[in-house]
Amino acid sequence: MPADARRLPVAVVQQRLSPDPQANRERSATLIRAAARDGARLVLLPELHLGPYFPRREDPDAFDLAEPVPGPSTAFFGRLARELDIVLVVSLFERRLDGLYHNTAVVLERDGDIAGRYRKMHIPDDPGYFEKYYFTPGDLGFTPVATSVGRLGVLVCWDQWFPEAARLMALAGAELLLYPTAIGFDPADDPAEQARQLDAWQTVQRGHAVANHLPVLTANRVGREPPGEAAAEAIDFWGGSFICGPQGEWLARATEAEGQVLHAELDLTRTARLRRIWPFLRDRRIDAYGELLRLARDDDTP
Amino acid sequence: MPADARRLPVAVVQQRLSPDPQANRERSATLIRAAARDGARLVLLPELHLGPYFPRREDPDAFDLAEPVPGPSTAFFGRLARELDIVLVVSLFERRLDGLYHNTAVVLERDGDIAGRYRKMHIPDDPGYFEKYYFTPGDLGFTPVATSVGRLGVLVCWDQWFPEAARLMALAGAELLLYPTAIGFDPADDPAEQARQLDAWQTVQRGHAVANHLPVLTANRVGREPPGEAAAEAIDFWGGSFICGPQGEWLARATEAEGQVLHAELDLTRTARLRRIWPFLRDRRIDAYGELLRLARDDDTP
Repeated sequence: MPADARRLPVAVVQQRLSPDPQANRERSATLIRAAARDGARLVLLPELHLGPYFPRREDPDAFDLAEPVPGPSTAFFGRLARELDIVLVVSLFERRLDGLYHNTAVVLERDGDIAGRYRKMHIPDDPGYFEKYYFTPGDLGFTPVATSVGRLGVLVCWDQWFPEAARLMALAGAELLLYPTAIGFDPADDPAEQARQLDAWQTVQRGHAVANHLPVLTANRVGREPPGEAAAEAIDFWGGSFICGPQGEWLARATEAEGQVLHAELDLTRTARLRRIWPFLRDRRIDAYGELLRLARDDDTP
Repeated sequence: MPADARRLPVAVVQQRLSPDPQANRERSATLIRAAARDGARLVLLPELHLGPYFPRREDPDAFDLAEPVPGPSTAFFGRLARELDIVLVVSLFERRLDGLYHNTAVVLERDGDIAGRYRKMHIPDDPGYFEKYYFTPGDLGFTPVATSVGRLGVLVCWDQWFPEAARLMALAGAELLLYPTAIGFDPADDPAEQARQLDAWQTVQRGHAVANHLPVLTANRVGREPPGEAAAEAIDFWGGSFICGPQGEWLARATEAEGQVLHAELDLTRTARLRRIWPFLRDRRIDAYGELLRLARDDDTP
C-alpha cells in the first residue's frame, strides 16, 4: 500500500443460524472476537442474525421476535464493540410500535454507542421470502452512518439489486457499502440455475463497487433452514459472503462452510485516486435522469 | 429453449481499425456478411468503427471525419442491412451543424431504413480520450429504438459506467442493451491494474444485465493505435467484447484476436420470467430517489 494509505482492516462474518437466539448471539460473539483478534476494526454480520429466517412463512407469532432499537441486542453488541474497540454492524427485527416493524441495521461505535441505523428501504416478497408481511419499507432514506472508521453506506439484502441505493449512498459521501443478507437457493431449481443466481448476486454488487468506486462488504447466512427439512420445503442459504475492492476486484470470498470470518485490508484513499482516472461522477446527466423517479416510462399515462 | 421462446440470434463484431476508412468499411462488411451467414439477425459494431480512435488527441482537422446522419455511411450500411435482411447497429461521428457534433449510434432496419439513432449522453474526457473536445453530449435522452427484432437500448461506451442509463432504457421497455465501445489500456499501467480495469468494465455491464434482467451486447475495438507507436504514446484497445444473458451470465467472450465475430442466441422471453422470480421493478423507491437528480448530496448547498 502507498505511504499515504488509509488502512482499514475489515471482516465479514458468515454464519449458520439455529432456532436458539441465545446460542446464535454467543456464536456471533465468538466469531466477532476472532475477527477482532485477527485485526479487524470493522465487522459486519448477516441479516437478522439472531435466529432462523422467519419470513419464510407468514406467522403472526413471529412478531414476538422483534425488539426495540435501542434494546437488549444493541446493548449486548454495543458492550462487545466497546470491549473489542471495533465498529460493529448488526441486523435486527426492529419493533417501532405495535403494528410497525422494520428490518434494521444498526451501527455500533467503538465506545458502544449507536452511531446510526438504516431501515431496509426495498422490501422483497416472493415465495419463501414473505417480507412485506413483516417489514414496513424504511423511512430514513439512503444516508451513510458516520463512524470513527469512515462513512458507512449500510444497506440490507434486497437493496443490493438496486443501483439507485448504492448511488445515493455514494453521492452522500459513503466510503464503503455494506450488505447484511439472507439469500438462498430454491431447492427446486437445477444446479445451473442456482449457479447463475449466486453469480448474478455477486456480480450486481461488484458492479455497484465499480460504478461508485467503493469497496463492498456482504455477509450472508449459510445452510439449510429449517435444518432437518425436506429440500422442497427448505431454503438453502448459499453463503458466498465476500469483500471486494473499489474496482469490484475480489479481496475475500467465503465458501459454503459454517462460521467463517473473511478478512481484508482496505485502503480508503483508493476511491479518490480511481475517481481521477475514470471520473464518472463528473459526468452524470442529472438533466436527463428525471424519469428515474417514475416506476415505468409508459408515455400513455401522464 | 422452451417452446414459447422468442429466439434472436445476435452477433457482435470486434474489429481492429486502420487509418484507411474505406478499408475499415469493407472489412466491417466482410465481418457483417459472415455474421449474417452464420445466422445473426442483429449485428453490433464497435464505437467509431470507420477509423482510428481520433479523440486520443485534440486536432481541429479531425472534424473532417464527421458526416451527417443520414449520410454516406448510413447509406452504405443500410444497403448491407437490406441485402442481408438483418438489423445493424453502427457508430458514427455525426456532423449536425458546423461546430456541433455528436458521437452517434444508428440503427439500420432490415429494409435499409434508419430505425433510430442514439447520441452518446455521457462524454468522457481523460488523458488519451479527449472526447469533450469533439462531442456535444446527446440531447435525445435514453430512448430505446423500436425494430423488427425488438426494442434496442442502444448506449455508447462511457455510458456503460452509469447504471442510470441502463435503468432508464429498461424503464422505457428496452429488451436488450447494446454498447459500441472504444476502450483500452494505458500502457503505463502494470498488468495487474490492466486486468482489474478490464474485469471492472465487464463486471459493471454484467451488473446492468442483472439489475434490469436484460441481455447485454458489447463490441470493442482491439489492438494498438497508432499501430507502430511506442507503448508510452499509444492506446492498446483491449478487445474483450462479449454477450451476456439477463442474469449477467456469459454467452460469448472475445479474446484479443482481430476481426472476431461473437454469436449467441437470445431468448427474449427470459426477461419476463426472471422478473416474476426476482421482481425488482415492483419495489423501486421512487419516493426516495429524488436526490439522484443532484450531482452530490452535499447538504450545505441549497
